[in-house]
Amino acid sequence: MKFFCFALLACLNTVMVLAEDPLPSWKEAPAKQSIIDFVQNVTTQGSDSFVPVAERIAVFDNDGTLWCEAPLPNQAVFVLDEIKRLLPEHPEWKQDPAVAALLGGDLAALKSDQYAGLIKLIALTHTGMSPDEYTERVDRWLETARHPRFGCSYTEVIYQPMLELLDYLRANKFETWIVSGGGQEFMRVFAEGTYGIPPQQIIGSHARMKYELVAGKPTLTKTIDTLFVDDKEGKPVAIAEFIGRRPIACFGNSDGDQAMLEYTTIDNPRPSFGLLVHHTDADREYAYDSNPPSSGKLTTALEAAPQRDWVVVDMKKDWNVVFPADGKKENPDNDRSKLLGSWLVEDINHHGVMDIAQTTVQFGDNGKVSGSTCVNRYSGSVQIKNGNLKFGPLATTRRAGPPAMMDQEQRFLRAMESVAAYEFGEPDIVYFLNRNGERTMKLSKQ
Amino acid sequence: MKFFCFALLACLNTVMVLAEDPLPSWKEAPAKQSIIDFVQNVTTQGSDSFVPVAERIAVFDNDGTLWCEAPLPNQAVFVLDEIKRLLPEHPEWKQDPAVAALLGGDLAALKSDQYAGLIKLIALTHTGMSPDEYTERVDRWLETARHPRFGCSYTEVIYQPMLELLDYLRANKFETWIVSGGGQEFMRVFAEGTYGIPPQQIIGSHARMKYELVAGKPTLTKTIDTLFVDDKEGKPVAIAEFIGRRPIACFGNSDGDQAMLEYTTIDNPRPSFGLLVHHTDADREYAYDSNPPSSGKLTTALEAAPQRDWVVVDMKKDWNVVFPADGKKENPDNDRSKLLGSWLVEDINHHGVMDIAQTTVQFGDNGKVSGSTCVNRYSGSVQIKNGNLKFGPLATTRRAGPPAMMDQEQRFLRAMESVAAYEFGEPDIVYFLNRNGERTMKLSKQ
Repeated sequence: MKFFCFALLACLNTVMVLAEDPLPSWKEAPAKQSIIDFVQNVTTQGSDSFVPVAERIAVFDNDGTLWCEAPLPNQAVFVLDEIKRLLPEHPEWKQDPAVAALLGGDLAALKSDQYAGLIKLIALTHTGMSPDEYTERVDRWLETARHPRFGCSYTEVIYQPMLELLDYLRANKFETWIVSGGGQEFMRVFAEGTYGIPPQQIIGSHARMKYELVAGKPTLTKTIDTLFVDDKEGKPVAIAEFIGRRPIACFGNSDGDQAMLEYTTIDNPRPSFGLLVHHTDADREYAYDSNPPSSGKLTTALEAAPQRDWVVVDMKKDWNVVFPADGKKENPDNDRSKLLGSWLVEDINHHGVMDIAQTTVQFGDNGKVSGSTCVNRYSGSVQIKNGNLKFGPLATTRRAGPPAMMDQEQRFLRAMESVAAYEFGEPDIVYFLNRNGERTMKLSKQ
Repeated sequence: MKFFCFALLACLNTVMVLAEDPLPSWKEAPAKQSIIDFVQNVTTQGSDSFVPVAERIAVFDNDGTLWCEAPLPNQAVFVLDEIKRLLPEHPEWKQDPAVAALLGGDLAALKSDQYAGLIKLIALTHTGMSPDEYTERVDRWLETARHPRFGCSYTEVIYQPMLELLDYLRANKFETWIVSGGGQEFMRVFAEGTYGIPPQQIIGSHARMKYELVAGKPTLTKTIDTLFVDDKEGKPVAIAEFIGRRPIACFGNSDGDQAMLEYTTIDNPRPSFGLLVHHTDADREYAYDSNPPSSGKLTTALEAAPQRDWVVVDMKKDWNVVFPADGKKENPDNDRSKLLGSWLVEDINHHGVMDIAQTTVQFGDNGKVSGSTCVNRYSGSVQIKNGNLKFGPLATTRRAGPPAMMDQEQRFLRAMESVAAYEFGEPDIVYFLNRNGERTMKLSKQ
């Protein structure tokens, strides 16, 4: 019998190793689960909701969805820095009301008159050169410019959970596109290296270039002609023009993304998914919706979300990490190694346990967990990452015990199934949390 | 010794099986070889000419490059057929000068006035409906319309050698794009099924769509606003706008493709390749350049080709097959099975052979060839496809013979190396041809 049990345990352990978490920076909460459910639905061959690979198009806004857009959109900082850099060569610019407003910090003046001033500034800094020369300018700026609050490069104020989401979708054969109000050529400079999205999958605001042979050489020149602003209703228009296929997943953060969220999710013959990133985290990033620091106003899309079944990501509650660098910082409260070893269960769902019936949890260094339910031995796999904690199905021996102990065993096993995270409390105390962030178990170090 | 020879032959035969010909509908001639050389150059890791996968962008014109554009461009036939189909619902159209010119066959009138008449006809048949409704109309037309000369569907007057080229490039991790003056949404209806090119890799002439919610449903409407004609200098402009990366290979057939050929091949920091399909085959398709039946004028690009190192494909000489259906027809002159069996060499490079020294070629049914050089036995692999004939390296025994026979053996083995094709002549006679189409060997059936 003993041999049989161990053989069974060994066998179960082999098949019960969990696949690695594709979204480790997402807390175990409904937003994360809804993403995983959607991806599993559309990629399960033979199911009604299966979507062929060719139609797995996912579109992402950029400013505020993939990278930070506060206190100013990053491209606006580029415009300002470029105007300053080029001003000595163009003293006549000082007479320009738009340049004067910019240098004087008068954003209201720039936004008035149908954004004519802003467009003038974009023309001064984005046209009259070849795309290659423009790329060099953006590259040079990205190398030296630093975010005023976070002190790092602008390509580092990108959202780690969204990077994981891009990877996860691509691993499931989605084609990931950017559809953003930002400049198309601006984003193409860094998006391949930063997001893994090649230039031909980046749609942004753009104007028609000019082509000619100059001294026998092919020469493209950026202009401001036929300017297309890739925002609001422009987004579905651009998707139809560039992609020619309706997306099945759409990720945004502002009212400017509402039209493409609607285009993706309303009346789509395929299963579809919409998501809004809600900036709720003033500590780690910014907190805004109806009154943003600059761009990214979110009111009507947020109101529409429940009716449309769009997932609203609460940045503060749903993300373990905001920027990639955060995940690399020392975080003693998330220290995985502190979990290793043996723990005694003190409390299950706010009910104590019997002193004579020890329920234990032992974390091995090999992704395995084992211990005593108080009646039986159990064993299984465990995933620990960035504060998330997830047990695989637990295999137990089958001994019977007194009713009170069998009851404690059942409460323990049920509670273990719902564990989603952990946090350390008083010295030598750890709490297990469920998906809603509620403490469901208290354990003390043995 | 005998054992050693057979072991050697067996061993050599195993490693000498040739990779399957990726371009069987291309004759063994310089055009085909230059394509293969280019692809091998840019995909050979570690070589100076290696191009990373992300930059392997190939652009193709459509009309006259991937499918037939005579006697009228296929989309023009669609316009005509649609006008006729819709006329009963729109009797007022009869008063329109453009419609009257079309119905009266007055193409000159349509082309005058900056093509205003043609644009009017396009507006009547291509706007005011959703892209989905438009797709249905094109689909319905493609199902019923037949090419006036070839009697088959318009999606069957496509070029088999170009289909193989598309596949070959994709197998070598190129991304294949269409960049055509044809309607973008028109091509997107059939190009995925016909060429394996998805909608998001198709750039054509296009106008800005309109997006709105109608009765709560996302609704796109085709318009003629901001019409972009994707021809001539428009092609490199569109490539920069949609792809954002310079192609390394470009395939066209008319002066309308010259700008994108120049953009691809002049001053490109990467190795690059340009190719023009020259319509020289009035028997199997059409023969035209400076004076085309309708679209596809080719003069300046053809003149520029030698200087630019663009490969000019002579449809008649370079293609074994034009349309996919041709390859399926019975062609007794290309009958592979007629080659099987034993042949006696009569003549090598227009010099006879000695009666007493028989040189033979025996084709097996298993891709193997064997025979006697007249002194030694030889053996190797052979590829026979659509009139192409290619021998793998031949392994021989090593017996010495009289000088005259050794000389005949050498002439035979050298000639075998250069064989590229075959053709049947008088009864029971076959000729082997070299890459230039010259007969290098005459053989009689044994």
